[in-house]
Amino acid sequence: MLDDKKFYSKLGTTYAPGIMNSILLPKPGTKLIRFTGGSYDVPSLPTAEVKRIFEDASPAAWAEMLQYGGTAGMPSLLNELSKFMAGHKINADPGKEIIVTTGSQEAIDLVSRVFIDKGDQILVGAPTYLQALSAFRAQYPKFVDIPIDSEGMDTQVLEEKLKKLKASGKRAKMLYIIPSFQNPDSSLMTMERRKQVLELAEKYDFIIFEDNPYGYISFEGPMPTPLAGIDKSGRVMYTSTFSKMVSPGMRIGWITANPDFTGHMIEAKNNISICNDGLSQYAATELFRRGDVERQIPKVTKVYRKKRDVMLEAMETSWPRKAKWEEPKGGLFLWVKLPRGFDTDALLKDSVAKGVAFVPGSLFFSKPVHNYLRLNYSLPSEEDIVTGIQALGRLLKEKLK
Amino acid sequence: MLDDKKFYSKLGTTYAPGIMNSILLPKPGTKLIRFTGGSYDVPSLPTAEVKRIFEDASPAAWAEMLQYGGTAGMPSLLNELSKFMAGHKINADPGKEIIVTTGSQEAIDLVSRVFIDKGDQILVGAPTYLQALSAFRAQYPKFVDIPIDSEGMDTQVLEEKLKKLKASGKRAKMLYIIPSFQNPDSSLMTMERRKQVLELAEKYDFIIFEDNPYGYISFEGPMPTPLAGIDKSGRVMYTSTFSKMVSPGMRIGWITANPDFTGHMIEAKNNISICNDGLSQYAATELFRRGDVERQIPKVTKVYRKKRDVMLEAMETSWPRKAKWEEPKGGLFLWVKLPRGFDTDALLKDSVAKGVAFVPGSLFFSKPVHNYLRLNYSLPSEEDIVTGIQALGRLLKEKLK
Repeated sequence: MLDDKKFYSKLGTTYAPGIMNSILLPKPGTKLIRFTGGSYDVPSLPTAEVKRIFEDASPAAWAEMLQYGGTAGMPSLLNELSKFMAGHKINADPGKEIIVTTGSQEAIDLVSRVFIDKGDQILVGAPTYLQALSAFRAQYPKFVDIPIDSEGMDTQVLEEKLKKLKASGKRAKMLYIIPSFQNPDSSLMTMERRKQVLELAEKYDFIIFEDNPYGYISFEGPMPTPLAGIDKSGRVMYTSTFSKMVSPGMRIGWITANPDFTGHMIEAKNNISICNDGLSQYAATELFRRGDVERQIPKVTKVYRKKRDVMLEAMETSWPRKAKWEEPKGGLFLWVKLPRGFDTDALLKDSVAKGVAFVPGSLFFSKPVHNYLRLNYSLPSEEDIVTGIQALGRLLKEKLK
Repeated sequence: MLDDKKFYSKLGTTYAPGIMNSILLPKPGTKLIRFTGGSYDVPSLPTAEVKRIFEDASPAAWAEMLQYGGTAGMPSLLNELSKFMAGHKINADPGKEIIVTTGSQEAIDLVSRVFIDKGDQILVGAPTYLQALSAFRAQYPKFVDIPIDSEGMDTQVLEEKLKKLKASGKRAKMLYIIPSFQNPDSSLMTMERRKQVLELAEKYDFIIFEDNPYGYISFEGPMPTPLAGIDKSGRVMYTSTFSKMVSPGMRIGWITANPDFTGHMIEAKNNISICNDGLSQYAATELFRRGDVERQIPKVTKVYRKKRDVMLEAMETSWPRKAKWEEPKGGLFLWVKLPRGFDTDALLKDSVAKGVAFVPGSLFFSKPVHNYLRLNYSLPSEEDIVTGIQALGRLLKEKLK
């Protein structure tokens, strides 16, 4: 028998299957209502639109789809992404400032490799996107946590921490931020704070990595202008994805940055995926060209707003007062604070036993914090939302007695 | 103006755009015959088959394609891959021993992260696949070069090097190997050597990472049994891909390994791509189910054998005697040795000026070796093969005078 353990790298050892994998395996014969991942509302997926695109494809288009493409992406898709981003004030040369990625996760991984060295001071939200933390961790940075409140990242604390770093002879290299409907707490950063962050980046000379998967899913008015649409310095890298607005199965993300940065990331991508999927890149290009993307976003946003309302109403009527939350103005998630000392990791086991799953908040912090949980409302049906929230409410009332 | 340079990580700095990118940019108005990458013969791509698969897809299938899938892959595709590998004696449980990857490149990257630590002794062919070397380099291993001859990796030298390592208190952790029609020299490892490698792995206690993209493209008889089809110890990880046998644009690769190894790689994949493309996974499943994969392999193999013959004939009639090569018995590449002291990096510039590109051999060695070049015959037309080989022959005759 092979002694597996001794072959893993130090990093490899950290990839032991985690809490979500072990608890959430489907148990035969029982229904599990999942308020977990950020999956798409199935009936809203643009299935007819994509089907039609493939029906219409020419033989030359099929050949292009099935052959290798360039590492940076299909030129036609890069053009469409450039036009799309111009609509929210981001100017990106499709020939050298955009890379198509396997979801925005690959963009996060590329940034992690190309920019983060062991020990680098990386500024992150507390809380923030869990898979960004774990992708960054592969390079062993030091995380500097910046609190998030209902107006987004707290720029006053950010400045204090930057001052402290500087005073101790250290330097922050990069800030990772999700300004619009941030994961997990759906907070929306104010325009004032957006400008302050950019000023601080100039003053303290760090780069910004802006992650914007959720900004398009805005319940009140148009998407707020991303940092990359305000920045003039070239220090903001911006990633977004089809996963929340069009289709996660297509694995179409992208990153835009100054051409020197993208040049290095393209070389790195050669070692990871070589090029992106041709079928999805072609379908994505056509979805843009036909106006399907622009139609899909308000369509799915309406569905998510309704589901959010259903979830909020069920929580208001069935959850204990000690649980606190804010109404999301966009995005896919509801972030719940429980009294200090409460452990949502432990709650998850009991909750799954009652047929309901959520994501424990601890996964979203660089240092352990246990009294939060994240609920997703985009995937479950309205009926399941009510049933699941009531069941979880009963469990919480029992635990908080 | 942003001072870009100071933000790169040590690894990021190594990703400055390389020789192939800078030289091979298309120049307007000139034709470049490319004997470079391992692209597919365009007229042979299974365009009609894939088109039909999407025409036939049910609404439920479309919804599955466009939604997130599991990190390990679509269960139906994992089943087909398990059946397909059973045809060449590899037994892999589709539920826990296979991961679908973004081409086999992602598999190489996963292995690199999960198994290689800085300073680890990694055994590689000299020469070997360039993007494996660069993916491994991200973890800063020490490469131990093992020569390749016409019978594949030289197991006698391998054993000597293992003995030496042991004598100096070191240990080889992993061997990376392409036993069948290896990239770049298309050598085929004999069955005797295959067995020897497995014995050495047991004796010196290292793991084997077998890369088999080319074995299916066999010009004389069936594909030789992979190491993973002979091994009983669980120490062989095996990767293959659709890229050479069906379609590179689909980005369907896979890796099989013992379940503890795959469990760790699945967690790592969550940080890189989350899941694979749904459209391509569905199409790949159906291509297997309909027998299209089994039909496609002999079809494209016949085309490549013919192109190989055309290239060999053009070389025999127009190339100088000082250039040496062996007839490939499979795969996509012809590997040419030039006299010691000849520099094919320098030759490339002159060659591109004459309208012909190849890959300089130096890229395939962990330490610099400059008197080789690799030619690809799968992409160019037969006519272009003749024209390009003759032009390159004239240039070589001039340089070797």
